[in-house]
Amino acid sequence: MKIAVVGGTGDCGQGFIKRWAKEHEIIVGSRRAEKAEETAESLTSFLREVGVDARIRGMENGEAVEASEIVVLSVPYKFVESMTADLAESYSDQIVISPVVPMARVEKHFEYTPPVQGSAALLVRELLPSKVKVVAAFHTISYAALQDLEKPVGGDVLIAGDDPESKEVVADLARIIEDLRPLDGGPLKLAAQMEGLTPLLLNISRLNRVKNAGITVIEG
Amino acid sequence: MKIAVVGGTGDCGQGFIKRWAKEHEIIVGSRRAEKAEETAESLTSFLREVGVDARIRGMENGEAVEASEIVVLSVPYKFVESMTADLAESYSDQIVISPVVPMARVEKHFEYTPPVQGSAALLVRELLPSKVKVVAAFHTISYAALQDLEKPVGGDVLIAGDDPESKEVVADLARIIEDLRPLDGGPLKLAAQMEGLTPLLLNISRLNRVKNAGITVIEG
Repeated sequence: MKIAVVGGTGDCGQGFIKRWAKEHEIIVGSRRAEKAEETAESLTSFLREVGVDARIRGMENGEAVEASEIVVLSVPYKFVESMTADLAESYSDQIVISPVVPMARVEKHFEYTPPVQGSAALLVRELLPSKVKVVAAFHTISYAALQDLEKPVGGDVLIAGDDPESKEVVADLARIIEDLRPLDGGPLKLAAQMEGLTPLLLNISRLNRVKNAGITVIEG
Repeated sequence: MKIAVVGGTGDCGQGFIKRWAKEHEIIVGSRRAEKAEETAESLTSFLREVGVDARIRGMENGEAVEASEIVVLSVPYKFVESMTADLAESYSDQIVISPVVPMARVEKHFEYTPPVQGSAALLVRELLPSKVKVVAAFHTISYAALQDLEKPVGGDVLIAGDDPESKEVVADLARIIEDLRPLDGGPLKLAAQMEGLTPLLLNISRLNRVKNAGITVIEG
């Protein structure tokens, strides 16, 4: 499949690309096409050195979205609203993956700060054409681990969305990444509790000295 | 220490009592003293049979609170506001543990439905004297596992509260229960994300056939 990673020049985006490029065609998206192309070239060289023959291109964000079947919103929350609204006309019926987490640092702690829609995923849902399938996932994955191909990432990927087929596509993307287990978390309106895990885990990391905390669901 | 379990005649309350009675003095609280005494007697007999010599008494809720250093609010969310307000005068400077989760079933899913204060823990905080130390914890523990002394409970107990010493007391109560690991989750205002884990896990249980789902924080 063709996967556009909007904000693909950042750490999180590059992590996803490194993991998925062996099985999918990747389009790095950025505000400036040249920057996207540079990142695409450097990731292609990096992957070639580790024996992965990847097809990665770079494009301006709007073109990247138009050319793809799956779009990953790999951008900080503060840019999501303007960026999604600006790019809305480039969307048709893609699957849009939102790992976006609205949060703020208050004193020493992180707090979940959802928009009036209830979650970043529902904000994105509101801004995009109705045929687009929005899936919330990958909120609690360590980007540091994602970038390091030597390392299994581990933990569970909780997935929320209203279209079962799209959720299965996203679950398959999680399965490509070693040791990650996808879990269905229900409809998109339940994404808030998943997004809220990120500030929760950041606080637990700091207070209990657990590095890059992620979660696993266990059977009781 | 003297621990009052308000709502101690229910499944959740009995689970805590079975686990803690070997190390602490327990007071079962109920609306009716006779019912509390009955439960106290039956738990004492049960524990004697498995070789635990426990000191368990039963009292009307208000008396149970007055006689204790720690109070566990082992009651369904819908009763918490009225019950806490009614008992407010029985409190002085206890540690109050809230495992309470406000949630509703909407179609097939559970949704987190916090009160205007932001969480059940903050609602309780608002209703009780300022010297009472409210600690939110034990939201994601399987009550079925808790009741079965043959079984390790497993998973992590996330703890939120504003008084470090009280949080350490609650962490010690978690450590009594085999295989449970206490983790500090920050100040009480962050309890909402912990309470919200319960509907999240109930949905994951049902959708992915994971029995009595709990969580573990992993290092990435």
